[in-house]
Amino acid sequence: MQESSMNAQRRAHLADRLSDADGPSSVDAILVSNLVNVRYLTGFTGSNAAVIVWSGSAPAPAGRICTDGRYVSQVAAQVPDLEAEIARNCPEALLKWAVSVKPHARIGVEGNAMTIAEFADLEELARELGAQLVLRRGTVEELREVKDADEVEFITSACAIGDQALASLIDRGIIAPGRTEREVARHLEWEMYALGADAIAFETIVAAGANSAIPHHRPTDAVLAVGDLVKMDFGAVRHGYHSDMTRTFVLGEPDDWQREIYRVVQAAQQVGRDALVPGAKLSDIDGAARRVIADAGYGEYYVHGLGHGVGLQIHEGPGIGAAAGGTLRDGATVTVEPGIYLPGRGGVRIEDTLVVSDSGPRLLTTTPRALRVL
Amino acid sequence: MQESSMNAQRRAHLADRLSDADGPSSVDAILVSNLVNVRYLTGFTGSNAAVIVWSGSAPAPAGRICTDGRYVSQVAAQVPDLEAEIARNCPEALLKWAVSVKPHARIGVEGNAMTIAEFADLEELARELGAQLVLRRGTVEELREVKDADEVEFITSACAIGDQALASLIDRGIIAPGRTEREVARHLEWEMYALGADAIAFETIVAAGANSAIPHHRPTDAVLAVGDLVKMDFGAVRHGYHSDMTRTFVLGEPDDWQREIYRVVQAAQQVGRDALVPGAKLSDIDGAARRVIADAGYGEYYVHGLGHGVGLQIHEGPGIGAAAGGTLRDGATVTVEPGIYLPGRGGVRIEDTLVVSDSGPRLLTTTPRALRVL
Repeated sequence: MQESSMNAQRRAHLADRLSDADGPSSVDAILVSNLVNVRYLTGFTGSNAAVIVWSGSAPAPAGRICTDGRYVSQVAAQVPDLEAEIARNCPEALLKWAVSVKPHARIGVEGNAMTIAEFADLEELARELGAQLVLRRGTVEELREVKDADEVEFITSACAIGDQALASLIDRGIIAPGRTEREVARHLEWEMYALGADAIAFETIVAAGANSAIPHHRPTDAVLAVGDLVKMDFGAVRHGYHSDMTRTFVLGEPDDWQREIYRVVQAAQQVGRDALVPGAKLSDIDGAARRVIADAGYGEYYVHGLGHGVGLQIHEGPGIGAAAGGTLRDGATVTVEPGIYLPGRGGVRIEDTLVVSDSGPRLLTTTPRALRVL
Repeated sequence: MQESSMNAQRRAHLADRLSDADGPSSVDAILVSNLVNVRYLTGFTGSNAAVIVWSGSAPAPAGRICTDGRYVSQVAAQVPDLEAEIARNCPEALLKWAVSVKPHARIGVEGNAMTIAEFADLEELARELGAQLVLRRGTVEELREVKDADEVEFITSACAIGDQALASLIDRGIIAPGRTEREVARHLEWEMYALGADAIAFETIVAAGANSAIPHHRPTDAVLAVGDLVKMDFGAVRHGYHSDMTRTFVLGEPDDWQREIYRVVQAAQQVGRDALVPGAKLSDIDGAARRVIADAGYGEYYVHGLGHGVGLQIHEGPGIGAAAGGTLRDGATVTVEPGIYLPGRGGVRIEDTLVVSDSGPRLLTTTPRALRVL
């Protein structure tokens, strides 16, 4: 599908959704100022933008995008199907426009994107204009949780780049004693770029030896040594969509404790993946995997949630954790990433990105999960 | 200076500043939840954290940092001088702690970091606890505008990496007809990493030919050709601090129009740099450089502000633009980056990072600015 019509479909979906609400959260339009949401709804990738989407069953009135003077040609190319306004303060410019289209409009704003200060300024303007701002939470984020076919395709491409890059490093013997964590990270990133990544999904984690016990370790000049666990957590970006994967290797013959925690994490990860059933409670999915680790006696060494949504952001809804509310939706793309971290000794995490479906979760990251000795 | 004592000094500075305020903005403590500000005040680099700093002349009561279970060892290592609380929702945990230390406390929150939704939740808790939240804007950001010696050193290192990486690409003939924009960008980034960059400061811009007329162009597979302007805007990160530099080259003998716009931009950039005097109005600095371009007849092709602060963020205060309020402060690190962009033909931008001082601005990026033919 052509990208702009895909974006138009998402706006239509949002317009429909807005028209469902009534009472205090009902709105005539929503002012979307979170840049990721703007991209989702319009395809625009600049660093300053907002968009208005009117409520109403399709066809709703045409919305409008706003960006500043640096992006005049870019917005015309990326968003051919919306009129563009050029201004520095886009929320203010679009609020004025909305009121000129519909006096006394009730305009939704993104409560989990807009800061208190931005809201205070905008509310002052709204009062002058006779408009009313309505606080909304997660309206666009909820739509984004369920991926359409194009989104799954981009995430799949990003995951394939990660798998292929890791395979290349293994084949070329890059993950080996004598290399530094940094070197390995840089080689992996270079390879992902060579395979077509538009960007690196997040700061690549390469953690060797005792550093592997730090869940989010930043690569250092530490040298990989025989006997180390080496944990690598990384991803690529394609068309704005992220991949996320972790694999942990052992350099040379594993110790018994290394085999043991690896086996437990692998079992927990399998259980977590199997629990990805549409409609399942998010906290139950987390609980299923967590129980495997707790039953093996390592509960206190598993210090984070089981996974998270992946898409235009590396971390997005749904969060899969012990305290998560809500259920898993058909079509969500999520990670499953349990870990055991033994301070001062080492840690193991195994993570995949999957798409949830009625016919069972589908793995988008495909590198084998069996313990691999390098 | 040892990093943790540097951070303690910044907290003491903030505590002093807080005790200056009275009336509606006076507070007993500030709850800092913007992660960049948390890093500035504590050195902590994890992805979930907040910190409380109490008001009062030094020595103010000890504050407290909060992060979640993934970062237990990291927070102990990076912030040895503050007690750490481990929780998922740090603003809530720290608010409870603050009220336990001082009942009915007035707690400042960061109005330009906290979202409306976060604030609404926190305010509900504050009511239950009998505390009062006080909206503050830019309190820590204002401190951050003026860099201390360590910060200038890190920015200087980051700038040197950028200069050296660019020189290496030129020496090795990488910026040449036949290469793609992407290839040049990747080589530059690889080189910056090899020279010790901890990260890339922002998505590297390499824009050739007509693409150079797009101010913020993302590298494509477009092939560099003889006759092209090639605009490169990039930076490195050292210890969290960014560099920012743009140079524009010509491949082969320049056309007259290319020489002309280059000459104008170069003159405007010199005027802009000369205008970096402590106490100068930010809008006057912008105006001085802008006038050079407007007088040459290219005003409509210069579509952005003159510059911005650089530090822990690639874009921070002060913004130097036509509509900017305020004045330039001694010790600020800023960019000066005028440009002319002729749609469909090509563009030129020249950008340096400088530190402002009473004895004149000091260039931290040092690659020559004369027109260079490659």
